[in-house]
Amino acid sequence: MTDITEARRELALANSIVANEGVLDAFGHVSMRHPDHPDRYLLSRSRAPELVTAEDLIEYDLDSRPLRDPGVPQYSERVIHGEIYKARPDVMSVCHHHSPAFMPLLATGTNYQPIFHLGSVGGMRPPFWDQHDEFGDTNLLVVKPAEGASLARALGSHWMVLMNRHGVAVVGTSVRDCVFRCVYSARNAEFQVQAMALGTIGPLPPGEVELCARITTGTTGLSRAWEYWAMRVAKGGGGLPPVTKKAARRQSAAKKSKRARRRR
Amino acid sequence: MTDITEARRELALANSIVANEGVLDAFGHVSMRHPDHPDRYLLSRSRAPELVTAEDLIEYDLDSRPLRDPGVPQYSERVIHGEIYKARPDVMSVCHHHSPAFMPLLATGTNYQPIFHLGSVGGMRPPFWDQHDEFGDTNLLVVKPAEGASLARALGSHWMVLMNRHGVAVVGTSVRDCVFRCVYSARNAEFQVQAMALGTIGPLPPGEVELCARITTGTTGLSRAWEYWAMRVAKGGGGLPPVTKKAARRQSAAKKSKRARRRR
Amino acid sequence: MTDITEARRELALANSIVANEGVLDAFGHVSMRHPDHPDRYLLSRSRAPELVTAEDLIEYDLDSRPLRDPGVPQYSERVIHGEIYKARPDVMSVCHHHSPAFMPLLATGTNYQPIFHLGSVGGMRPPFWDQHDEFGDTNLLVVKPAEGASLARALGSHWMVLMNRHGVAVVGTSVRDCVFRCVYSARNAEFQVQAMALGTIGPLPPGEVELCARITTGTTGLSRAWEYWAMRVAKGGGGLPPVTKKAARRQSAAKKSKRARRRR
Amino acid sequence: MTDITEARRELALANSIVANEGVLDAFGHVSMRHPDHPDRYLLSRSRAPELVTAEDLIEYDLDSRPLRDPGVPQYSERVIHGEIYKARPDVMSVCHHHSPAFMPLLATGTNYQPIFHLGSVGGMRPPFWDQHDEFGDTNLLVVKPAEGASLARALGSHWMVLMNRHGVAVVGTSVRDCVFRCVYSARNAEFQVQAMALGTIGPLPPGEVELCARITTGTTGLSRAWEYWAMRVAKGGGGLPPVTKKAARRQSAAKKSKRARRRR
Repeated sequence: MTDITEARRELALANSIVANEGVLDAFGHVSMRHPDHPDRYLLSRSRAPELVTAEDLIEYDLDSRPLRDPGVPQYSERVIHGEIYKARPDVMSVCHHHSPAFMPLLATGTNYQPIFHLGSVGGMRPPFWDQHDEFGDTNLLVVKPAEGASLARALGSHWMVLMNRHGVAVVGTSVRDCVFRCVYSARNAEFQVQAMALGTIGPLPPGEVELCARITTGTTGLSRAWEYWAMRVAKGGGGLPPVTKKAARRQSAAKKSKRARRRR
Repeated sequence: MTDITEARRELALANSIVANEGVLDAFGHVSMRHPDHPDRYLLSRSRAPELVTAEDLIEYDLDSRPLRDPGVPQYSERVIHGEIYKARPDVMSVCHHHSPAFMPLLATGTNYQPIFHLGSVGGMRPPFWDQHDEFGDTNLLVVKPAEGASLARALGSHWMVLMNRHGVAVVGTSVRDCVFRCVYSARNAEFQVQAMALGTIGPLPPGEVELCARITTGTTGLSRAWEYWAMRVAKGGGGLPPVTKKAARRQSAAKKSKRARRRR
Repeated sequence: MTDITEARRELALANSIVANEGVLDAFGHVSMRHPDHPDRYLLSRSRAPELVTAEDLIEYDLDSRPLRDPGVPQYSERVIHGEIYKARPDVMSVCHHHSPAFMPLLATGTNYQPIFHLGSVGGMRPPFWDQHDEFGDTNLLVVKPAEGASLARALGSHWMVLMNRHGVAVVGTSVRDCVFRCVYSARNAEFQVQAMALGTIGPLPPGEVELCARITTGTTGLSRAWEYWAMRVAKGGGGLPPVTKKAARRQSAAKKSKRARRRR
Repeated sequence: MTDITEARRELALANSIVANEGVLDAFGHVSMRHPDHPDRYLLSRSRAPELVTAEDLIEYDLDSRPLRDPGVPQYSERVIHGEIYKARPDVMSVCHHHSPAFMPLLATGTNYQPIFHLGSVGGMRPPFWDQHDEFGDTNLLVVKPAEGASLARALGSHWMVLMNRHGVAVVGTSVRDCVFRCVYSARNAEFQVQAMALGTIGPLPPGEVELCARITTGTTGLSRAWEYWAMRVAKGGGGLPPVTKKAARRQSAAKKSKRARRRR
């Protein structure tokens, strides 16, 4: 039996880490397949990922319907998660992000290319998916089950799928594995863009990509990185800033004035 | 009846947020049309935006004359705000900034282009305005009513106007809407410049731009982003650093020596 | 009579500000002509500028000889300051820096060009100076009076001189004026490099450069910026980090072990 | 007799500094030849360098075997250190890193070139080493003694060796010298990449490189930089974030639940 309380804390921390490392900002989200119920997943209520706590997590079935009425706004793009969990039984965690590092690739349709060993966690040549091809003019948000299913098909057996003019979806065999792939594929994308401005990239031979991609499972690298990223989140105040006296006074004043207005 | 105290706090916070997100530095400003008196607007006294508090706000008429003698230095470029509020009854908030992200576009006369869904908040093809065309050699500050009116005409019905060799003016339907447009148009400008160095941009089709531009009103994105940005300001100390004992001693010493000199 | 205590505090803060704004790192320095003795100047002992306090300042004559034996290591490049004060009676403050923003210009011999109004504080076309031309192979440090005098000649009546493969020397009519020129010329250099990668720069007409260059004296901009930068230094701990218990223990332990070794 | 306690503290701080200055992240490491036993070296257990403390250091012989069973996971790439100490008796400290600044050079096989005086600490033309040449497809980690020995041969008498598609190994005559070379070669690499996008680099003449490379030993620059970097680490919390009440509660809760599970 999994310690679900600890698993939920880890997922909340994962959201903070991916934001704190600059891959997510106000938008994007990391989810986890329920460790004891593979036909469910956990995802935060609609909230900036850096601020997500274990209490914010909602349980969904794979059709992305909440098991209980959450009573709070939900992410409109949760079908990305549900449809990928349906299509990929090996995937235990999904992240959707709009990392600045990927934007030049996404805007120009340039292929992702591992340029150093850790960049291999993004895979050899992750596919592109253009929502317009199948669905015409949209606001580019992936909100319909059919849109999510189409994205999951494009992902296939890869670790990432690049969404034209939008963002990226990344998957992993665990929450930590997914976080590692998010951070180091974003680092690689940044380096790749700079390298392409400088000259011709000498790419990793396929054999190297394959061997490098197993680094996280074969070495102590994953736990080393996790400890480091968690410390960085803790240093920065853990996503939740210390309540200053001034801010507390502000909030208290704001609440009072709201109450006063309601009474009127 | 609007809670004007809360509205003023929100405008002060807006100034801090836009600075904290790297769009403003020592210069630039965010204003708000007075919620109860559409022929007035609120703008800080001459102060770096990150430091603006509700107490710093001055009430202006649309000719940018203060309603009361403020007794403190004022921004010389306030006509940007007054003239835009005159010309655009739908606009409830205005920001003028010199974001680093826009500088390469402004220096080379390169058109702004939405390259991902959130970049649509800047509009399809915001116009350029060159102060030199109508006014010849100036210090580029928009200080005369005629200069402000000319800028407002160039803005037309757009959400942004790009000011050659100077900066940007952004408008919104509310303070939060204006802040959102500032932040995500600046992110888009940054990505666009990087993408143009890499290859040819596959632009958003007009239909997508139009639909994406409504994301902020149609989803929970705006309040999610606002909570996140406000937390980031609070984490950083809210624009006002904690007074350290050393700084307090310094200030106290400085005051004493000033008093002493005055007595001489 | 000037309040020399306050003037010294301002110079110390100037060093912290220019470092905190990313123009200086472990190296570089800001000096001030002595307000009451124009044939002297004040410059810190050999110390990273962010850490400089009023107590670190040493008084020099214009031949860069300390008025009293300082009993501490001094900057080897202080002749930059002394020789410029000799050659330029209007200059009240000098900064020498190796700002990252200027490095691409210095490495390629590309002219500085104001690309937005605030960039005008660097002047229209600041000259280059190559130490190798007159002095052959050196370690590029400006340590001999003749080297300093040659640099001052190259500066002429400009506000900046670009030192090939090394850095920049900036001058101002006051400490604050010099700091302002350092920060905004560095911002402009950064934007210029990005703009040149994007397209052809539409430069400021000479008339605009001239008018814009007077912004700092003709508006409230200088004091607004100074308040902002001082607050940012204060937020970051004022150059001097809070002594944590752990660090205090470390220092105390280190002192003890040093004493113990000396006794041996 | 060296104060080994202080030496160990200095090495731990060196790891924090190189990470805090952005050269290392979760990966990479700085080692020190044992000051009293030249046939041994000190290197942390497997841990992100920013978090390394004196207690984490393990003593190795030059075949990279720990003198005592450390009882904790070790870095798999420690042969980089052992084999370089074997081959280079003059080297007292080694750093292996994957600095973002070097990635564009490593990915494109572009030679490192000192573009300003401080960049000379990286040497005139540091060699490249490609693990694939001698060892075929690997995961690029340098884990076998033969791989480390091959890398040390490529290093020769240089201060750096560039490892294609991987990272860099830097050596120094002391821990502080090695840290200085790491930081300023990374700064130079960053400037060089930007300069190459702008135009043709006017390189330092060989005579200047040679003289500049001796700056750190001939001036007060090294101790000035060390004080600055140490202060920056202290400001940021010294690698170890302050334990917040919330984090303490989390940890305590996590421990309790682990104990509870063990009991089951």
